[in-house]
Amino acid sequence: MSLSILPVTGIGDVTAGDDLAELITKAAPWLADGDVLVVTSKIVSKAEGRLVEVPADGPEREEARQQVLAGETARVVARRGPTTIVQTHHGFVMAAAGIDASNVDKTHLVLLPADPDASARALRDDLAERGLDVAVIISDTMGRAWRNGLTDVALGAAGIGALRDHRGEFDPYGNELTLTQMAVIDELAAAAELVKGKSDKVPVAVVRGYSWAGAGSGARELVRDTASDMFSLGTAEARAQGLRDAAHLDSWSAPDIGESRVLRLTPAGPSPADLIRLGEEAHRVRLLLAADGLSSKISFDDDGVTIEVTE
Amino acid sequence: MSLSILPVTGIGDVTAGDDLAELITKAAPWLADGDVLVVTSKIVSKAEGRLVEVPADGPEREEARQQVLAGETARVVARRGPTTIVQTHHGFVMAAAGIDASNVDKTHLVLLPADPDASARALRDDLAERGLDVAVIISDTMGRAWRNGLTDVALGAAGIGALRDHRGEFDPYGNELTLTQMAVIDELAAAAELVKGKSDKVPVAVVRGYSWAGAGSGARELVRDTASDMFSLGTAEARAQGLRDAAHLDSWSAPDIGESRVLRLTPAGPSPADLIRLGEEAHRVRLLLAADGLSSKISFDDDGVTIEVTE
Repeated sequence: MSLSILPVTGIGDVTAGDDLAELITKAAPWLADGDVLVVTSKIVSKAEGRLVEVPADGPEREEARQQVLAGETARVVARRGPTTIVQTHHGFVMAAAGIDASNVDKTHLVLLPADPDASARALRDDLAERGLDVAVIISDTMGRAWRNGLTDVALGAAGIGALRDHRGEFDPYGNELTLTQMAVIDELAAAAELVKGKSDKVPVAVVRGYSWAGAGSGARELVRDTASDMFSLGTAEARAQGLRDAAHLDSWSAPDIGESRVLRLTPAGPSPADLIRLGEEAHRVRLLLAADGLSSKISFDDDGVTIEVTE
Repeated sequence: MSLSILPVTGIGDVTAGDDLAELITKAAPWLADGDVLVVTSKIVSKAEGRLVEVPADGPEREEARQQVLAGETARVVARRGPTTIVQTHHGFVMAAAGIDASNVDKTHLVLLPADPDASARALRDDLAERGLDVAVIISDTMGRAWRNGLTDVALGAAGIGALRDHRGEFDPYGNELTLTQMAVIDELAAAAELVKGKSDKVPVAVVRGYSWAGAGSGARELVRDTASDMFSLGTAEARAQGLRDAAHLDSWSAPDIGESRVLRLTPAGPSPADLIRLGEEAHRVRLLLAADGLSSKISFDDDGVTIEVTE
């Protein structure tokens, strides 16, 4: 099996309401049964009108962008400096929820398609109506943990299985192959990216020669559920969670620290046990400060403790 | 630009000392200047003799495997059940340090090449001696955070830049493209995987038509340094680190807890401040237990505290 990866040029600017099947078949009249069509999510979003109006510049623009980001965010995964990595409502873990300001005029931001698998199915169906049996992948560019550089992956898919499963096969030495479920739609998206540009002139590519069959359950199958993800939170966020959990061990109702730089804590009663409890509480308070990134020092005297924020 | 991805069949079993350039040019006499050659790391390891003898089965095999893993591990990134994700001495974050028992007889494990960039350069040079100017990528299969399924990525590269940098380019709307360094050697490795099998019958593929130039600094460029990686530790490991840090705040010399299920702590002296300090210490002890996954309960009395491990 050898593959060809063919760019589709001449699609031009896509706007809300455009019929992608028409645009693509016009630009690529050579599209054929069995092809895998890889479509950049940006033009799907544009055709579906997934744009938000924002100010062209100034602090208002950044404020609007933050609001849009909050709307697209199911949970924040990690933050560092200007970078916010979130899990979107689809389940994708992406910087800035995949919201993009490139290849669109300065007064709009482009959101990801609301349901990329549904978009892929719709496009596949539209092409089927034109007599074409092609698999459809909707792709976008993502960063990843541990490795520099971005790659294209599949956000949506139709007509093709997300995974190719080698389990149950044997190698020439008789070893059963285990744990080798290949994310082929991600590899197809990556392959297609190699002939696309970033400037939207080649938003579609065709992979020819790849044998696919079976309906597939969409790219959703590649979204790892958070509970089974060993990297569901950034390292700094998880460490801070550990500090917070340390403070709240056994469920503890924290005193209101507010913006205080110096805290004076005294025992609840006169007994020795009250004094011991105070020491425990003092450490919990310091852990809350630490979870917020604040160092502190503590001093003990016979009437209580003083905690001073040092940074 | 359109690409072809061509499988190289008929390479057969590779053993230590084999000349890969000869095997590949014999199997693919059609290899041509400008091609990108993507070679599965497994056959590079075999040719370089990166095999370790292990017992064929039994607990001795698992014990030997653990020892080999420890030798390949620079640091443990995350553990869950039977899965250990480590950072190798090369800097790659991979399950089981990329050690593989497939496509090799049962008495050996295959390690990653010691220096995949050097292996890629050597193969590129050997091919150059045969008059061929091809880029070389050495690939392997990796898992990733957040997404199910594995993809092939580049462990080593020669003759080709690891990243394609779109920064400084402009889209048709005049927006400067930012933050778009594409990890093209990973995408090429992924594309090549689509025509390879997992059973080692097609360990090499050729990408034809991709325009590459410049020496490139190897796949090492894709290894994110740990300090700037927001996901350098697993979530559970980072949370446990937070708990440990909470216990050791200000540097604290922990008492020896050992395997005790019940701990009795008493104050160092008779003053109220000593009692307060005792309470603080008691919480630190409980956090150490929590960092090891142990729940505890605490009770306070006028002479000290009792901490009981509850799970």
